[in-house]
Amino acid sequence: MGTSFVTLSTQECRDRLAATTVGRVAFCTSQGPRIYPVNFGVVDGSVVFRTAPYSDLGTLVVGAQVAFEVDELRPDEEVGWSVVVQGRAIRVEDSGEMTQLRRTIPEPWASGQRGMFVRVDPTRMSGRSVGSGR
Amino acid sequence: MGTSFVTLSTQECRDRLAATTVGRVAFCTSQGPRIYPVNFGVVDGSVVFRTAPYSDLGTLVVGAQVAFEVDELRPDEEVGWSVVVQGRAIRVEDSGEMTQLRRTIPEPWASGQRGMFVRVDPTRMSGRSVGSGR
Repeated sequence: MGTSFVTLSTQECRDRLAATTVGRVAFCTSQGPRIYPVNFGVVDGSVVFRTAPYSDLGTLVVGAQVAFEVDELRPDEEVGWSVVVQGRAIRVEDSGEMTQLRRTIPEPWASGQRGMFVRVDPTRMSGRSVGSGR
Repeated sequence: MGTSFVTLSTQECRDRLAATTVGRVAFCTSQGPRIYPVNFGVVDGSVVFRTAPYSDLGTLVVGAQVAFEVDELRPDEEVGWSVVVQGRAIRVEDSGEMTQLRRTIPEPWASGQRGMFVRVDPTRMSGRSVGSGR
């Protein structure tokens, strides 16, 4: 039968987000919803990831309202948790901020020119766990 | 430096989707994008998951164009793959179909009344891998 969902506190959401390095960014386009996995870092409470400026993601995400999701789901045990951050995706253009981000944000897994930094300042954060995944 | 993305064939996408039991459903609402992790099954090529009819997901997803994502991301090795299915979310209302789905779709992890079946018939499917995650 499984167990009910448990709502995570804002602090739990922050902690789990900070302890995670891969997530999925979802947003709406005129062609419908899009979702892309990215590796990311948390800087001053914001989600920051890198992409290529001319990629599908890089072209479409800037300025969009996004839902950014991280989770840990263990099918064998039927337990898991997820955290979702909502906010607008902003392209980082300040050269000082970019220099700092280059030091703190992990390199993307994929090679190629991924010199574009995208930042999501959370306006809303929510999380929940199911099973003993807490 | 990592390696480049490799595009997965449609058959590889189908195989990985069928071998996976948890995914994330993303869709657009008037309040912006939403994303929910769900456990699911594949029936005749369609993604099927269960939810509660009065949940946020159950209320918002029916009729929506969705992007449904599955992945396997291994941060330690910097390898991974993802598959995204696009299509419209349809509430299954035919009682014969529901009876059959009850036998084939795994029980949701969370307890409670989750008697609503939602089906996504893929109109588009794409996937890619990075690193040696293929």
